[in-house]
Amino acid sequence: MQFDTVIHGGTIATADYVARGDIGIRDGRIAALAETLTGGDRRIDAGGRIVMPGGIEAHAHIAQESSSGVMSADDYLSGSVSAAFGGNSSFIPFAAQHRGQSVDDVIATYDARAARSVIDYSYHLIISDPAPEVLEDQLPRAFERGITSFKVFMTYDLMNLGDGGMLDILTVAREHGAITMVHAENNDMVKWMNRKLADKGLTAPKYHAISRPELAEEEAINRAIQLAKLVDAPLFIVHVSTIGGAEIVRREKFNGAKLFAETCPQYLALTREDLDRPGVEGAKYICSPPLRDHATQDALWHHIGQGTFESVSSDHAPYRFDETGKFLNGRDAPYPKIANGMPGIAARLPYLFSEGVAKGRITLEQFVALSSTNAAKTFGCDRKGLIAPGTDADIAIWDPEARVTVTAADQHDNMDYTPFEGMELTGKPEIVMTRGAVIVENGELKAQEGQGRFVARQPVDLRGKPGFTAKELDPAQNFGAELR
Amino acid sequence: MQFDTVIHGGTIATADYVARGDIGIRDGRIAALAETLTGGDRRIDAGGRIVMPGGIEAHAHIAQESSSGVMSADDYLSGSVSAAFGGNSSFIPFAAQHRGQSVDDVIATYDARAARSVIDYSYHLIISDPAPEVLEDQLPRAFERGITSFKVFMTYDLMNLGDGGMLDILTVAREHGAITMVHAENNDMVKWMNRKLADKGLTAPKYHAISRPELAEEEAINRAIQLAKLVDAPLFIVHVSTIGGAEIVRREKFNGAKLFAETCPQYLALTREDLDRPGVEGAKYICSPPLRDHATQDALWHHIGQGTFESVSSDHAPYRFDETGKFLNGRDAPYPKIANGMPGIAARLPYLFSEGVAKGRITLEQFVALSSTNAAKTFGCDRKGLIAPGTDADIAIWDPEARVTVTAADQHDNMDYTPFEGMELTGKPEIVMTRGAVIVENGELKAQEGQGRFVARQPVDLRGKPGFTAKELDPAQNFGAELR
Amino acid sequence: MQFDTVIHGGTIATADYVARGDIGIRDGRIAALAETLTGGDRRIDAGGRIVMPGGIEAHAHIAQESSSGVMSADDYLSGSVSAAFGGNSSFIPFAAQHRGQSVDDVIATYDARAARSVIDYSYHLIISDPAPEVLEDQLPRAFERGITSFKVFMTYDLMNLGDGGMLDILTVAREHGAITMVHAENNDMVKWMNRKLADKGLTAPKYHAISRPELAEEEAINRAIQLAKLVDAPLFIVHVSTIGGAEIVRREKFNGAKLFAETCPQYLALTREDLDRPGVEGAKYICSPPLRDHATQDALWHHIGQGTFESVSSDHAPYRFDETGKFLNGRDAPYPKIANGMPGIAARLPYLFSEGVAKGRITLEQFVALSSTNAAKTFGCDRKGLIAPGTDADIAIWDPEARVTVTAADQHDNMDYTPFEGMELTGKPEIVMTRGAVIVENGELKAQEGQGRFVARQPVDLRGKPGFTAKELDPAQNFGAELR
Amino acid sequence: MQFDTVIHGGTIATADYVARGDIGIRDGRIAALAETLTGGDRRIDAGGRIVMPGGIEAHAHIAQESSSGVMSADDYLSGSVSAAFGGNSSFIPFAAQHRGQSVDDVIATYDARAARSVIDYSYHLIISDPAPEVLEDQLPRAFERGITSFKVFMTYDLMNLGDGGMLDILTVAREHGAITMVHAENNDMVKWMNRKLADKGLTAPKYHAISRPELAEEEAINRAIQLAKLVDAPLFIVHVSTIGGAEIVRREKFNGAKLFAETCPQYLALTREDLDRPGVEGAKYICSPPLRDHATQDALWHHIGQGTFESVSSDHAPYRFDETGKFLNGRDAPYPKIANGMPGIAARLPYLFSEGVAKGRITLEQFVALSSTNAAKTFGCDRKGLIAPGTDADIAIWDPEARVTVTAADQHDNMDYTPFEGMELTGKPEIVMTRGAVIVENGELKAQEGQGRFVARQPVDLRGKPGFTAKELDPAQNFGAELR
Repeated sequence: MQFDTVIHGGTIATADYVARGDIGIRDGRIAALAETLTGGDRRIDAGGRIVMPGGIEAHAHIAQESSSGVMSADDYLSGSVSAAFGGNSSFIPFAAQHRGQSVDDVIATYDARAARSVIDYSYHLIISDPAPEVLEDQLPRAFERGITSFKVFMTYDLMNLGDGGMLDILTVAREHGAITMVHAENNDMVKWMNRKLADKGLTAPKYHAISRPELAEEEAINRAIQLAKLVDAPLFIVHVSTIGGAEIVRREKFNGAKLFAETCPQYLALTREDLDRPGVEGAKYICSPPLRDHATQDALWHHIGQGTFESVSSDHAPYRFDETGKFLNGRDAPYPKIANGMPGIAARLPYLFSEGVAKGRITLEQFVALSSTNAAKTFGCDRKGLIAPGTDADIAIWDPEARVTVTAADQHDNMDYTPFEGMELTGKPEIVMTRGAVIVENGELKAQEGQGRFVARQPVDLRGKPGFTAKELDPAQNFGAELR
Repeated sequence: MQFDTVIHGGTIATADYVARGDIGIRDGRIAALAETLTGGDRRIDAGGRIVMPGGIEAHAHIAQESSSGVMSADDYLSGSVSAAFGGNSSFIPFAAQHRGQSVDDVIATYDARAARSVIDYSYHLIISDPAPEVLEDQLPRAFERGITSFKVFMTYDLMNLGDGGMLDILTVAREHGAITMVHAENNDMVKWMNRKLADKGLTAPKYHAISRPELAEEEAINRAIQLAKLVDAPLFIVHVSTIGGAEIVRREKFNGAKLFAETCPQYLALTREDLDRPGVEGAKYICSPPLRDHATQDALWHHIGQGTFESVSSDHAPYRFDETGKFLNGRDAPYPKIANGMPGIAARLPYLFSEGVAKGRITLEQFVALSSTNAAKTFGCDRKGLIAPGTDADIAIWDPEARVTVTAADQHDNMDYTPFEGMELTGKPEIVMTRGAVIVENGELKAQEGQGRFVARQPVDLRGKPGFTAKELDPAQNFGAELR
Repeated sequence: MQFDTVIHGGTIATADYVARGDIGIRDGRIAALAETLTGGDRRIDAGGRIVMPGGIEAHAHIAQESSSGVMSADDYLSGSVSAAFGGNSSFIPFAAQHRGQSVDDVIATYDARAARSVIDYSYHLIISDPAPEVLEDQLPRAFERGITSFKVFMTYDLMNLGDGGMLDILTVAREHGAITMVHAENNDMVKWMNRKLADKGLTAPKYHAISRPELAEEEAINRAIQLAKLVDAPLFIVHVSTIGGAEIVRREKFNGAKLFAETCPQYLALTREDLDRPGVEGAKYICSPPLRDHATQDALWHHIGQGTFESVSSDHAPYRFDETGKFLNGRDAPYPKIANGMPGIAARLPYLFSEGVAKGRITLEQFVALSSTNAAKTFGCDRKGLIAPGTDADIAIWDPEARVTVTAADQHDNMDYTPFEGMELTGKPEIVMTRGAVIVENGELKAQEGQGRFVARQPVDLRGKPGFTAKELDPAQNFGAELR
Repeated sequence: MQFDTVIHGGTIATADYVARGDIGIRDGRIAALAETLTGGDRRIDAGGRIVMPGGIEAHAHIAQESSSGVMSADDYLSGSVSAAFGGNSSFIPFAAQHRGQSVDDVIATYDARAARSVIDYSYHLIISDPAPEVLEDQLPRAFERGITSFKVFMTYDLMNLGDGGMLDILTVAREHGAITMVHAENNDMVKWMNRKLADKGLTAPKYHAISRPELAEEEAINRAIQLAKLVDAPLFIVHVSTIGGAEIVRREKFNGAKLFAETCPQYLALTREDLDRPGVEGAKYICSPPLRDHATQDALWHHIGQGTFESVSSDHAPYRFDETGKFLNGRDAPYPKIANGMPGIAARLPYLFSEGVAKGRITLEQFVALSSTNAAKTFGCDRKGLIAPGTDADIAIWDPEARVTVTAADQHDNMDYTPFEGMELTGKPEIVMTRGAVIVENGELKAQEGQGRFVARQPVDLRGKPGFTAKELDPAQNFGAELR
């Protein structure tokens, strides 16, 4: 057999097993896995290294304008480069619809932006305006094109769909096999807290955490799930940050909801105390939902180990620590006027490997599942997230023993800080490939701008979800036989 | 000792005990309890009878216009008479604010209406318009007058406060020791279902049940509780009709919510199949939340026995089966245009005694607690619901062996039907007193119109509620020390 | 009316209400309750005082030889005196069968011992030898005499019945309407731990706590409940000391077990750290199950407030801190040879009042229920635990404001220490009556030895227990229709 | 590359993925996986077929004498042949110690018996006599040899270790990285029921189900877990047959127990009504724990889908329907004298595929995990249960569309009945390989007696089990630092 590349002598890790073996790559695909492979135009010696599916970042804001008007610092070039340095072979950033905008336009806009990516990409749409033409024509057209997921918000006045809007769009998603992602925080609770805090002049960054209480997330997660259950639609809860939220997800999965969920490294590594750092430093740690506490960290790790979450994603939201980002409204801006989000696309896998695998909280197989395989399965990337014959040669080669101190510079993004600064980690990705092409190798970028390709994704796979049968894709299943 | 009345030889039943004893009444109060009492201007022989605190009906719509414009068929005369025939010595109907109306006006209106009552009364306000002057001035004034409870709606476009409005009014209630009652159904879910059903032309009465699914109640109960928890306010969930709702109430009580709840006989006795009776007969069974199924009946009974609910109330909503009531919009009106509610004020206690005590599901002590004592405690009627020295002589004397077949005529209300028609019951109230005066005796009305008195009620008693201390009446306790 | 005694001007507290009123006593019974009563051979001014049912101590070892041969320091005179000083009007100590002994002999022995009691008394039997004649003749005879409860052990080699023995005796209890109490700790776990600790020479008092882990109690509580469920027999779990145990009790009550439970002040007030006091001081704190930790204290208080436990009992096991008690086997004895138990009969109510009512954890009504009323109901003392016409005038009059520092001397028992030494409490009983006779008044004993009377008790009352009907008293209900 | 065999054109299914690909086998191992492979001494066309890891039967009684003296009808030849016809490439039957017997002798005995096997094999020991020399010498020697699991019984007088024996052996297992399997039924409950039934003369086969109630399993499962938690040892619950048992497993896994569990097809496919078939036919359905009901079937399927169980095993216990098996004590023997067990080694995978995958209850990936991969991981078969480079070429090739009616003859065992007789299934294994050698092909046996090899197994892998770290392999971790 002829191979473009052979990865030789490594320890292959998948969601299923860890075993010695060689990988032969041809035409961007994994052509062969074997005990030993000869040949290869290039032979990579992976002795002492872990060879795993490249990460899939399923939650990132790239070249996206926030609803409050801040542009993310990373475009598809810098964002994809940073992702690759962090061990990712592909990503699925958001393509955000502003109110009044057609989904077709949104996609066209992001297609142009994404053309710079060095790794493969798809989009999750963000839908803020579920007008009839969006629901009836534009969304189905997007699904048809392979953009089979979208996110909606239960918070932010400009984004919040309301429960009725949620039901409408969940129904459309269900009919077309798409999956609805949801940012679940109770909008009225947050606004009420903002008002109370403002009334008392409490506007420092630390009040951001107080303004978005655990209850706001827990309530909204529960509500989103009940809305989805009403129309029997699949649902993905993004960035779960609370003990209560994790418990609801776990309980409702068992009770038969077609439910998926993720959490993020910042909720495992940081706490709301970081928001109270001296001066305006706390602004770096403003994100929504906000950072919580140590008890929450422990509980979320426990849920990760127990399978409550499919994925750990970064929620990379790169707003610089300057007037273009965090301080668009000035360095003295009250917390609601500080840009909301933090970077992390390059830190996600190293953090999860080090704190998870190296510290014995999760297995290497779980690490692969949480960082790559499950995202591929949930979002219909049927050629990614695996090491199997015929799948895309999206591969990361890790040195499991390397000791790394996190610095902003090493994130290779357009940011001027990282919330993980100074953290000591074990393990790092040395080589990252997308479809067989080396993107990053030993700290150097090897890819050309625009090398990434759009990934058309499959409908959501509900096999094995309780109660699922093909006939259940019939809309309105749950609410009375005569409605069908 | 001199007594106006002595009840002699009966079996006294309270929430605490069942024991033989005599009761001496003077000046409308229980002056003495004793093994034997001599004297009494009147001596009532209660041999073989149960002597218990008169029922307190805590959920009734009397002389009240619904948000859709139907006037309840019972005014304070007929309503109080029916209540008394059903074993009640007092009641707390609703005094409903329409949008734009001042609470002072509402109270003045209902004071005039209630002047006809034959039994003692107070009101729960219904607040549909939490304008600043309502929250800041009018509600506190009402609380001051002893109207220490009010209901809000999470459903019906004209009534629904929204989550922000809920937070505002819960906070006001908390500050003044008042209790917020809530009709918990998700408004958007119901409207969405109505739209779907209408689109398919499914408008017969039976679709009413489909239009208000269990999920709508369960979601809203959970949300209401989380809103109350945010501001640490007490909350009373009215007419719980679902298994999921009861489970949430039970769980959240244990978790420390300051929570109270009730269910109603119709959810124990009837099912949604009654909505599918021939012709327009199903219209009689339209109420909200709607009737459910047999599994729900069993589960609600189990929760009653286990203490999940403080009370079983009637939700008496008397709309006649004619063009003044159910069919205000015609006999062919689609279900959403049929008046929503059913009578039951006279049937509540006989039903609960017969199906509960006589069938061994609850004890006689529980019956007293569920029908009288707990309502008094929850709503601050400190002289009612007990048989104790000095309390109001609100007493019902029951024949526990009587066999009764329920008929509309025997309800003594202004209605032309009862949903419990034909039910065979064991036990009935023979004599009902309010403050020592016999209101009903052996099937005859003995009271004069207007004999009832307004009951000024105490603030809600939160002793023994988890985490409660006096300082917790400080608003906004739960959301960060600096907000206090 | 003529009264022997009138208690005037006090605040009557029952499990149901708190209200001003007078109590008239005649012939040892409560003859009348009234707003005001004139007369009385003696008039007690109870202004500013709480007048409540006298405590019922349902768990005490009096004049009882332990299985390891230590006699409790208190006989029925000192034990009943101490109980009375602690606010109790009656008690139900254990009458212990040693292996081979007939129950008739046991009762005769304890009848002789109990003749000295100053307060009313009954016994719970302890059954260590469920021989056929015990099960078939002796126990039924004891039930017939009104001794309708007995305790069995799942631990201690000389006491442990084994699961089969438990099933046999539970079945007998069920047939006769008696209730089985159980000391639930897994015997093998404890023995195994003892062996491991002995192997390492770890024999100081503090290892007692390690030797009886939480798991041992939790496992045995669960097992006892499942055994009782198999034969559908009522069960009372004594001295629950663990979070897990309380959770199982709560869950299984809801699931329909005919289940009752108690905890004790020592598990609320002390921790296993007390076992590590200097020198042999830790020996004072050896009891079984052992003391736990602060998190357990909080959780048990929460369960008390939420109704998981019917009662808080003392488990008074008075072994002196000398060679007649704790150190029967020498002051250097390893922990398994130190007498196992601590006194507390006088401290139970003052502790529960102070830490419970005065600190707002429970209401005064709950205090009455937990210290008196529920014990009367659970164990069939139908004339005790209430303030109602015709019941025994077993009354305690409390000063709710008194400040007391606990000392051993003030316990009025035969002990030389109290584990609650030095604790500062609010509230104390001033006058305690049994059947109308003052036993204790303002710190002085007023009773004559032998004034107490045996209380013949009723069968266990299962009304309102899920699924209970009279026909269910048929044995072997749960295991197949054909077995009935 | 040179291959002995190439499987070409099939759909490879693993626990991780389903993908088209070829498999190249050399020297009994999977040498390569590829999109396409040329060559191969033999080429198998797997077009339209599923190519998956061969099943691993982890629960079977082969050539084993039961404690009541019945020899299983299958020896290692017939048993392994039947397993292979059912899609298994290896199995782990039991090697049973009788009391007094040394483990070394047990192993020698089974080594001789197993020499006939056509598929690879290991043993789980059964330990009935945990004498000191067994615990200290013999078991460690067996673990050293790669027999890293053993089963103990909580029921049967001749097998039951008692709780103390359990603690001893769990501790030994923990120290050596072995896993304890447990048959969890409360022995005393069963004996007590047997006695009650015998007293009434109820001895027909159907009473077998009544004699071993759900409570007996649920109690024992809970107890086994608590015992294992005390010493922090891993535990595997065999043949869970109850809703309550599954719930306990699920809850305790989440709570951090190092817990594994299985259920069996008979509990999914049959009910206790089968025990009431005419004549003595019910004897065919006697197994322990006994068959349950339809609600249990549904719940167990739900738990399978939700990951509560690692595996579905057969518990193949082949006792013929004649005087050598079921009726060793005569055809009229009472149920406790009828041999206890049923065959199923050939039916396990076809049943699970048909009812699970074909009916949409589980995914194909879950089927692989439940039938093969998880058993390999749990029991340390590090070269089996996977399709990965270098692992043993243990492969089954399935026709997913074949329609099969189950008959006893087609089980290819030594039995004269199958409890699944007449069941209509979809899908069947066509070719089964062990280490690259075809054992069964299109209904014909291709293997030579004795072709199977002993599999030395690894210690139990506890990575990712909550709280696990290497230091935790230190014994007695859980019960106090000073014990370590």
